[in-house]
Amino acid sequence: MTAERHSLHFQSAPGDPVDKWEHDDKPREECGVFGVFGSEDASVLTALGLHGLQHRGQEGCGIVSYDGAQFYHERYLGLVGEHFAGGDVPKRMPGTSAIGHTRYATAGGTILRNVQPLFADLALGGFAVAHNGNLTNAVDLRDRLVQNGSIFQSTSDTECILQLIAKSKKPRVVERFVEALHDIEGAYALVALTENMMIGARDPIGIRPLVLGESAGAMILASETCALDMIGARFVRSIEPGEIVVITRAKDGKVTVDSHFPFPRRKARPCIFEFVYFCRPDSVVEGRSVYEIRKRMGRRLAQETGVEADVIVPVPDSGVPAAMGFAAESGVPYELGIIRNHYVGRTFIQPKQEIRALGVRLKHSANRDVIRGKRVVLVDDSIVRGTTSRKIVQMVREAGAKEIHLRSASPPIKHPDFYGIDMPAVSELMAAQMTLEEMRKSLEVDSLGFLSVDGLYSAMGETKRDALNPQFTDHAFTGDYPTPLLDYNNGRTGRESQLPLITENAAE
Amino acid sequence: MTAERHSLHFQSAPGDPVDKWEHDDKPREECGVFGVFGSEDASVLTALGLHGLQHRGQEGCGIVSYDGAQFYHERYLGLVGEHFAGGDVPKRMPGTSAIGHTRYATAGGTILRNVQPLFADLALGGFAVAHNGNLTNAVDLRDRLVQNGSIFQSTSDTECILQLIAKSKKPRVVERFVEALHDIEGAYALVALTENMMIGARDPIGIRPLVLGESAGAMILASETCALDMIGARFVRSIEPGEIVVITRAKDGKVTVDSHFPFPRRKARPCIFEFVYFCRPDSVVEGRSVYEIRKRMGRRLAQETGVEADVIVPVPDSGVPAAMGFAAESGVPYELGIIRNHYVGRTFIQPKQEIRALGVRLKHSANRDVIRGKRVVLVDDSIVRGTTSRKIVQMVREAGAKEIHLRSASPPIKHPDFYGIDMPAVSELMAAQMTLEEMRKSLEVDSLGFLSVDGLYSAMGETKRDALNPQFTDHAFTGDYPTPLLDYNNGRTGRESQLPLITENAAE
Amino acid sequence: MTAERHSLHFQSAPGDPVDKWEHDDKPREECGVFGVFGSEDASVLTALGLHGLQHRGQEGCGIVSYDGAQFYHERYLGLVGEHFAGGDVPKRMPGTSAIGHTRYATAGGTILRNVQPLFADLALGGFAVAHNGNLTNAVDLRDRLVQNGSIFQSTSDTECILQLIAKSKKPRVVERFVEALHDIEGAYALVALTENMMIGARDPIGIRPLVLGESAGAMILASETCALDMIGARFVRSIEPGEIVVITRAKDGKVTVDSHFPFPRRKARPCIFEFVYFCRPDSVVEGRSVYEIRKRMGRRLAQETGVEADVIVPVPDSGVPAAMGFAAESGVPYELGIIRNHYVGRTFIQPKQEIRALGVRLKHSANRDVIRGKRVVLVDDSIVRGTTSRKIVQMVREAGAKEIHLRSASPPIKHPDFYGIDMPAVSELMAAQMTLEEMRKSLEVDSLGFLSVDGLYSAMGETKRDALNPQFTDHAFTGDYPTPLLDYNNGRTGRESQLPLITENAAE
Amino acid sequence: MTAERHSLHFQSAPGDPVDKWEHDDKPREECGVFGVFGSEDASVLTALGLHGLQHRGQEGCGIVSYDGAQFYHERYLGLVGEHFAGGDVPKRMPGTSAIGHTRYATAGGTILRNVQPLFADLALGGFAVAHNGNLTNAVDLRDRLVQNGSIFQSTSDTECILQLIAKSKKPRVVERFVEALHDIEGAYALVALTENMMIGARDPIGIRPLVLGESAGAMILASETCALDMIGARFVRSIEPGEIVVITRAKDGKVTVDSHFPFPRRKARPCIFEFVYFCRPDSVVEGRSVYEIRKRMGRRLAQETGVEADVIVPVPDSGVPAAMGFAAESGVPYELGIIRNHYVGRTFIQPKQEIRALGVRLKHSANRDVIRGKRVVLVDDSIVRGTTSRKIVQMVREAGAKEIHLRSASPPIKHPDFYGIDMPAVSELMAAQMTLEEMRKSLEVDSLGFLSVDGLYSAMGETKRDALNPQFTDHAFTGDYPTPLLDYNNGRTGRESQLPLITENAAE
Repeated sequence: MTAERHSLHFQSAPGDPVDKWEHDDKPREECGVFGVFGSEDASVLTALGLHGLQHRGQEGCGIVSYDGAQFYHERYLGLVGEHFAGGDVPKRMPGTSAIGHTRYATAGGTILRNVQPLFADLALGGFAVAHNGNLTNAVDLRDRLVQNGSIFQSTSDTECILQLIAKSKKPRVVERFVEALHDIEGAYALVALTENMMIGARDPIGIRPLVLGESAGAMILASETCALDMIGARFVRSIEPGEIVVITRAKDGKVTVDSHFPFPRRKARPCIFEFVYFCRPDSVVEGRSVYEIRKRMGRRLAQETGVEADVIVPVPDSGVPAAMGFAAESGVPYELGIIRNHYVGRTFIQPKQEIRALGVRLKHSANRDVIRGKRVVLVDDSIVRGTTSRKIVQMVREAGAKEIHLRSASPPIKHPDFYGIDMPAVSELMAAQMTLEEMRKSLEVDSLGFLSVDGLYSAMGETKRDALNPQFTDHAFTGDYPTPLLDYNNGRTGRESQLPLITENAAE
Repeated sequence: MTAERHSLHFQSAPGDPVDKWEHDDKPREECGVFGVFGSEDASVLTALGLHGLQHRGQEGCGIVSYDGAQFYHERYLGLVGEHFAGGDVPKRMPGTSAIGHTRYATAGGTILRNVQPLFADLALGGFAVAHNGNLTNAVDLRDRLVQNGSIFQSTSDTECILQLIAKSKKPRVVERFVEALHDIEGAYALVALTENMMIGARDPIGIRPLVLGESAGAMILASETCALDMIGARFVRSIEPGEIVVITRAKDGKVTVDSHFPFPRRKARPCIFEFVYFCRPDSVVEGRSVYEIRKRMGRRLAQETGVEADVIVPVPDSGVPAAMGFAAESGVPYELGIIRNHYVGRTFIQPKQEIRALGVRLKHSANRDVIRGKRVVLVDDSIVRGTTSRKIVQMVREAGAKEIHLRSASPPIKHPDFYGIDMPAVSELMAAQMTLEEMRKSLEVDSLGFLSVDGLYSAMGETKRDALNPQFTDHAFTGDYPTPLLDYNNGRTGRESQLPLITENAAE
Repeated sequence: MTAERHSLHFQSAPGDPVDKWEHDDKPREECGVFGVFGSEDASVLTALGLHGLQHRGQEGCGIVSYDGAQFYHERYLGLVGEHFAGGDVPKRMPGTSAIGHTRYATAGGTILRNVQPLFADLALGGFAVAHNGNLTNAVDLRDRLVQNGSIFQSTSDTECILQLIAKSKKPRVVERFVEALHDIEGAYALVALTENMMIGARDPIGIRPLVLGESAGAMILASETCALDMIGARFVRSIEPGEIVVITRAKDGKVTVDSHFPFPRRKARPCIFEFVYFCRPDSVVEGRSVYEIRKRMGRRLAQETGVEADVIVPVPDSGVPAAMGFAAESGVPYELGIIRNHYVGRTFIQPKQEIRALGVRLKHSANRDVIRGKRVVLVDDSIVRGTTSRKIVQMVREAGAKEIHLRSASPPIKHPDFYGIDMPAVSELMAAQMTLEEMRKSLEVDSLGFLSVDGLYSAMGETKRDALNPQFTDHAFTGDYPTPLLDYNNGRTGRESQLPLITENAAE
Repeated sequence: MTAERHSLHFQSAPGDPVDKWEHDDKPREECGVFGVFGSEDASVLTALGLHGLQHRGQEGCGIVSYDGAQFYHERYLGLVGEHFAGGDVPKRMPGTSAIGHTRYATAGGTILRNVQPLFADLALGGFAVAHNGNLTNAVDLRDRLVQNGSIFQSTSDTECILQLIAKSKKPRVVERFVEALHDIEGAYALVALTENMMIGARDPIGIRPLVLGESAGAMILASETCALDMIGARFVRSIEPGEIVVITRAKDGKVTVDSHFPFPRRKARPCIFEFVYFCRPDSVVEGRSVYEIRKRMGRRLAQETGVEADVIVPVPDSGVPAAMGFAAESGVPYELGIIRNHYVGRTFIQPKQEIRALGVRLKHSANRDVIRGKRVVLVDDSIVRGTTSRKIVQMVREAGAKEIHLRSASPPIKHPDFYGIDMPAVSELMAAQMTLEEMRKSLEVDSLGFLSVDGLYSAMGETKRDALNPQFTDHAFTGDYPTPLLDYNNGRTGRESQLPLITENAAE
C-alpha cells in the first residue's frame, strides 16, 4: 500500500542534529516529475498529478507554467496540497502547459534553492526542467562550468543540465538539450518546458521511470501511472530508455509527440527498488502491476522462508501486499496486528530517553488482541538499518507475542545508491555489517528471513537474474552498478559547494 | 482501521460555502479526552495521548497543566502534532498533572473559544475541564444561567458545567462538581483538573467511553485504550456509567483513586457507533476488541448479504476489517482494489466541475489490475449521504469492474444524533429518504446490502437487541433515544447564541 | 509632538526578562477609546479613529461592530494599521455602529484576553465595552464576584464592570450600567455598545478624557479630538465628569444623544499628564490646545531655569514644543541637535554590553555639527528613571557639547499612578530617590532644572495650584490622590489572579 | 529630518493596481550599503548600520557574513529591525566580516530574488556584492552575457557585475572585479565581500555616496556617516569618485586599506538629491552637513520667494530644516502647524472615495490652533507630482488658514532619473507638464515658489552652478545627464526579462 513517509524524529533536544533515520529508516526516493501540454487546466492538472506522486517526495514541490507570454514559477517547502490546492491556482499559474516536481531532500536552510523545477532565462528563451534521479558526474561537471564562468544558484546536480544548455551553441533548443545530455552520466527522468514545447527524457538504461499519458487531447508526462489515474488520463506508453520525446503543437492546433533516440540503444535496466518500495501499488511500471509483484514477493518469500506460525502481520503500509501474498501461500491467517496512525504531521521532539522510546508508537501501535499468545510472522518490504524493525519487534513482543519471525520481502541491502535514492551510510546498513544470525540476535526475533535475489527476479516474472546482462538495476542487493561513478571514484560527493547557508523569506 | 478524516472539499469557488460532507460523508466524533495525574512528564504524556486520540477530532486541541503554583493553558486549531510536538512542551507546560482535549468542530471564526479544555478561576481555585459528548439541555441551562448573571465566553455546551460549578455553594469542589452534574442531561465523558485533583466522570448510562490507566505510579484517564498504549500505560478498567473518579495524592505521596456513584445506578448503554466507526481498531472498548467486532460485522454481513463475486474490496481504511471478515466468511479473495493516498493535508479548491469530479481520487484510487473484469464486492463501514460511495463506485466502474456489489457493515442510518456525533441533516441521510432499491439505483450498483440491527448486536456478542432494555445507544439505526431531548423538544439547537463572530490573533 | 512609543529593548539574551523601561522610560498611557453610532462606515471610521489614537497604546487593538443582527468582534496584538487596514474591514465588520480600543499593556502570553473591547452575551443582549483608565477597587470587586459564582475570562479590571452589569436585576440596560458604575472607583472613560445604543461615560471627576463629535449625522465618542480630525468629524463638546451619554436612533431615524448625571456633581479634576505627555499636540483637551500649553511650559521653564547657552535642543519628539517655547523665551537658537530614527519596529536583542550601549542610537542620533563645541540646553517633557536621559546626555557629550543643561518641562515625578498610567516602580523614580544635585550628578549634566508645580499650573492657564481643591489630578508630582485607593490600601495589586498562562492560536 | 517613507496607499479595492505615489509622491532612493571587516561582531554591527540606513530603502534587506569557512546569507522583505534584531544574529551569521544592503524596490512577487547582497560561488571562491545606484547599460550587458551562456537568477542590474566577474580570466579577484567595472556604466557605490577581503568602489564621478569608517580596528564602509554614528564608529574619509578600496588583513593581523584608481581620474559630480532629500540630516556628505545645507536652502528660499505671512509651517519631516531656515531668514514665527503620525505600518485600503480622501490624515494632521485665521507659508523639500501637496493644502485650508503660500526648497523637478532614484513618470511630474501659474492653480494655493538652481548651488556653498562642469549631478532639475544612457537610448528599460513570476516560500 502507498506509504506515508512523513519523517518522525525524536530528537535529544531542539536544534540538536537529528538522526533522520531514527524512526523511519526506509530508503527515500528523491523525486517525482509531471507535465501537461495542451490543456486549459495545465497547472491544476499538474498540481493534482503531483499530489498523486506525493509518495515520491514530501519536502518540496514546485510548478512552472507558461501562458504564451510569461512563465509562472512557484516553489515551496512542504506538500503539494499545502501550496497548490487553492482555487486561485489557475489564476496564479495560467497557461496551457505546465510541469512540476515533488522532492525529497535533506534538511537544512539551503533547501528552497534546490526545489524544482529549475528555471533559466536562456538565449533562446525561458527553459524549465524537473529531474528525478541523480547524476554521477555532477561535481566534475560543476567544477568545469564554474571555471568557465558559470554561476550556480543551487547545489543541485540538475542545474548542471541547465548550465550545459546555456553554454551550447547549437541553433535549436532541442539540439542544445541533447548536447547537454551527452555530457551527463547517471540516472534521470526529465521533464522540461520551453515557450513552445514540453520535452521528456529518460537516461540510456531507464533507471528511473517515466510514462506518457493523454487526456482530452493534452499530452502528459509522469513518473508513474498512478498520477495519470489521479487526473483521469489514459496511459499511452512508457518512455523508453534513452528516448527523448518532444511534444509540440502542430500548425493544425493538434498536440504532437516526436520521438528521438540520440544515444546508441542499450538494454533497459530499470531500478528494481521502484517495485520493491517506491512506486504506489496501483501503478503499472514497465508493464507490470506493482501490487501483483509485491504479492508475488510475499508468496515467494513464504516458499523460501516459511515457518510454523499462527498469524501473518504486515508492517504497514509498505509490507501489506507482501504479507497478503505470504499468508495466501502459507495458509496462515493474515491479520492487522499493527495499526497505523495516520496523523503524524510534524516531528515530536522529546528530551527524555524513556519518552523517546515511545516514538515508534506515534506511527504504529500493536493490536494486542491479534498478537497476544501468538506465533507472529512480521512481513516488511525491506530492512535497512534495522532500528525501526527492532522497535516494532519490541512493541509486538510487549503486546504478548509468543514468537516473532521477521521476514523481508526483498534481499539484504548491502550497497549504497548513486541514482537518486537516499539511504543511510553503508556503515549503518545492517546487512552490510552483520551475518544473518547477528542480525537475528540484534533484532531480537526468533527467526529472520530475506527474499533471495533470484526470488525477487522470479517475482518480477523473470526466470532468474541474468548475471551478464542483469534485467534490473539492483546494486543495493548485488553491488553491480550500471553506470560509471566518476564523482565517487574521484572521492567526491555531490553536495560540496561554497554556496552560503541561505535564509530567505518573502513573507511580510 | 483507524480512519483519516481530514476533510476534503472541492469547492465551487474560494469563499463559497463548503459542503463539508461532499467528499467525506462519514459521521464525525466530536472529541477525545485525556489526563495524567502524578507524573513529572504530565504534559508530554498528555500530548502523546492526545495524538493517540487524534482520530476522534482533528480541528482543535488543547492542554492544561498545573505545577503546584500556576495553571498553564494552551489551545490551538489544528493537530496535536502541529502544536504540542516541540521539545519545549515540558518547559511551556510544567507540572505533574495535565489534561487535554482533541476536538472535531464545525468551521468558522468562532472556533477557538470552544476549543477545550475550558478553564475558570473559581472561588475555590482554578478548574479546567475537557468534555467528550453533548448535553441535551444546554440551551435551556444557558438561558437560565445568563438570566442569573453568568457571562459565557464560549458557545460550547461544556461551559454550562463550569458555570454551574461556579454558582454552587457547596463547601468542596467535588460536591460542587456533582451538584453541577445533577443539572445536566445528555452524554458526557469528562476529565477535570483542579489544584490538587484530577476528576473523571461518565454520564449515567455511559454513552461516551472513558478508561482508567496507570503508568509508573501516575493515573491516566483516556477516551480509548489505544491512548494508553500510545504512552505505554497499563489498562486498569473502564470508568463505569455514572461513576465519578477522584484522583488525588495521599499524604504518603501515592496517587489514589476514589470512586463515587452520586446518581441512581442505571444499566449501561454505550454508543454502538464507537464500535462501528469511531474507535481505533486496536482499542478495547467495554471489554471488546474493536478490530474483532468489525471483522465479525463483516462475517455476519456476508451471511446476511452474500453474493457471487470474484473479489472482496474494502473501502479504505474504515472498511478494512469488515472486508476481511466478509472475505473469510465468503471464501472470496480479499484484495486491495482501492488504494488510499495518505497525503491529503488541505482542501483542494477547484472551480471547474470536470476537475471537481476528480476529487474522490485525491484520497482513493482504483487498483485497476485487481478490478478489471471482476465482480467486485465493495465493503464499507457505513453509508451516510451516499455521495462518497457513489463516486467510489463510479471510479471502480471506470477501472473496469464487471459487477459492483456494495455492502455496509452497519444498518441503514436514519436518525439524527444529539450526543456528540456530527452527521448530515436527516434530509440528507440516504436511508432516511429512500427505499433500498432507490438507494441501489442512486448508487448505481448491481446490488446493495446492509447489516441488520440484530446482526450488528450479534457481532457485538449479544444474542439480539433487547427491545425493552437495549444494550447499546443505537438511535441512528433505530430512532430510540436513551435520554430526554429537552432542547430539541423545545425546538432549539445547541448553538444559538449572541456571542459575536470573533477573530483573535496573538501572533505579532 | 506625537510620540512614537515603540518599545526598544536591548536584552541580555533572548528569553531573559526584559527591562521594558531600559531604553524608553516614559510613562505609558494604557488606552484610547473610540466609537461611532449611525454611520454606514462605522467599523472603518473606528479603525481610522483608533489609528489617530495609536499614541495612547500600541500593544493591542480591537473593534466590535453590530449590524442589527450580529455582533462582530476582532482583537489583536499589534497596531491598528496592521490589523484593520484591509479593504475587507467593511465586510468583516458590517453595521452602522462600532466601538474600538487601543491598548498599551505589559508583555506576556496572557495579553490577548485583556485586549478590548470586552464582550458579553448578557440577559438583555450583547454588550461590548472599551475602557481607558484603571479601577482602584477592582481586586476587591473581583473577589466578591467570584465568590458569588462569576467566571472571569480576563485579568482586566474592566471585566468587573461587565460582571456587575450581568448581575444587575434592573429592568433596562442603562440602569444596569449605572448600577455597575456605582460599585466602581477610580478612573474611567468608557465607550459601550449594545444592540441599539452606544454609551459613553466618564468618571465623576473626569480623570481620563472623552469627547463627543459628529460626522454626517453619526455621533462619535473619542479619547481625543485628534481622532475626530482623523475622520473629518466635527468636535461637539467634551463629555463632562460624571456624565453618561446614551446615543440611540430615534423613531424618525435621527441619532440622538441623551445625557445623564447619576452621581452627585463634583468638581472636575482631569489628569494633568494628558497635557504634559500623553495627548497629541494637535488635540484640544478640556478646551485647551495641547501644543500651546506645551510651548508655554517651555516658556515658563525658561523663566524658571534659564541658563547661558548657545543652542536649545529638544529630545524628540515629545520635547519639541517645550523646546520651541524655551528657545522663544530665552532668545537662544532652537536647533535639531538630536535626530529621530523613525524605523524602529522591533526589539533589537544584543548579548554584548558594548553593543547594548549603542541601543539609544537606534532611536536617537546626535547631529554633530549642531552640537560640537556648544553649550547645549536639552529640553525633555519629563524625567522618569533617568536612564534614557543619561544615555542621551552621554551621546550629546560624545558629539562634542561643551556644556549640557538638562531641563524637564514638568515637575519631578515622585509618586505612583493608579489611574491607567504605567510607570516604573517608585523605587526607580529618580526624583523620588535623589536630591536635585544627586540627580544632576547621576545624569552627568552641568545643570538640571524642572518646571515647578505652580509653573505647570500657570502654563495650563491657572493662576496657581489651588491646594484645597486642585484643578487637576497631579499626584505624580504632589502625592495628592483624588480617589480612594481600596486595593492599594489592602496591599493588593490589580493583576493577581489564578488565570492560567494562556497561549492560543487560531492560525492553522 | 529623516523621512519615514512607508508607503501609504488608499486603494480602490484589494488587488487593484496601486498607485504607489498616491499618498507619498517623494522620490525614493533605492539602496543603502554597509560593510564591516575585522570585527567579532561583524554581522550585528552590519545590522545596526543598516538600521541607520533604513531611510534609504525599506522594502528589503540582506546580510552576508563569512566566518573563515562558510558564507552565511540572509535576505528578507521588510525592515532590518524585523529580521536582524534577534539575539541569535551572531550565531546565525558568524564571522569577522559582513556586508549588508537595504533596498527600496517596486512591488511584486519577484522581489526577493533582487534583494541584495547577491552572492555567487565563483571559480576563485565565494563573492557577495551590495550595490547602491543603477547601471545605464545593464540591459545591453545582460543580452550579451546571456548570448554567451550566462544564466541570470535575478532581474537586477547588479547581477551583471557578478556575471562579468565570473567570466573574467584575470588571475586575481580584484583584477576580475576591476575588469568588470570597466564594462559597466552608470552610478554605483559597491561593497563586496570575498573570503579574505572587503572591497568598496564608487563610480568614476561619485554619483552615489560611500564613506570609510573605523571602529576598534575594524574597517567600515557605509553609504552615509549616520550609519557610522549608529555603531559608534569614527568617520575616516569619503571614498573618492573612481576609487576602489581593498580591505584585507595583513600578516601581522592588522586590517589594512589599499586604494586603487583604475580609471582615468574625473571631476566629482555627486548627486545633489542626496542633499535635498535622501540623506539623513545628521549625515555629513562630501564634507557638508546635510542639516546645515537644508537650513540654508530655506534661508535662500525666503530670500528668493519671501511673502507676508503669520506663520511658517514645515511639511514634516523632510521640510523641517528648510522651514526653520525660512523662518529665521524671514523673521516670521516657525510653528508645527502639521503634526506627523508615526504609526503608519501598513497600507489602509478603502473602497469608498469619501474615506479614501481621509488618506492624507493617516500621516499628517493639521494643528488647528496654529493655523486658524493665519497666513501660512508651507515649506516642503520638493514637489513631485503635487498630489500629496494638494491634499495637505486642502487639509490646512479646512483647518482655517486664511492664506496658503507653498514653497519648495528645491527647484522644479522636470526630468527622469537613471541612477537609482525611483520617481514618477515624466508625464506625471507636475513641473514638467505645467507652468508655475498652472501649478499654483492646480495646488490651490495663494502663491507658489521654488528655490532656483543657482540658489540651490549657493546653499551648497558654491557661488553658482558651473554650466560647463557642473559640480553636482542635477539632471532632475536641469536635464543634464553626467553619463551615457545606452539602454535608454536603445529604447530599453532596465527591467525587461523573461524571468518568471516567482513565488517561493521557505516557511513550512
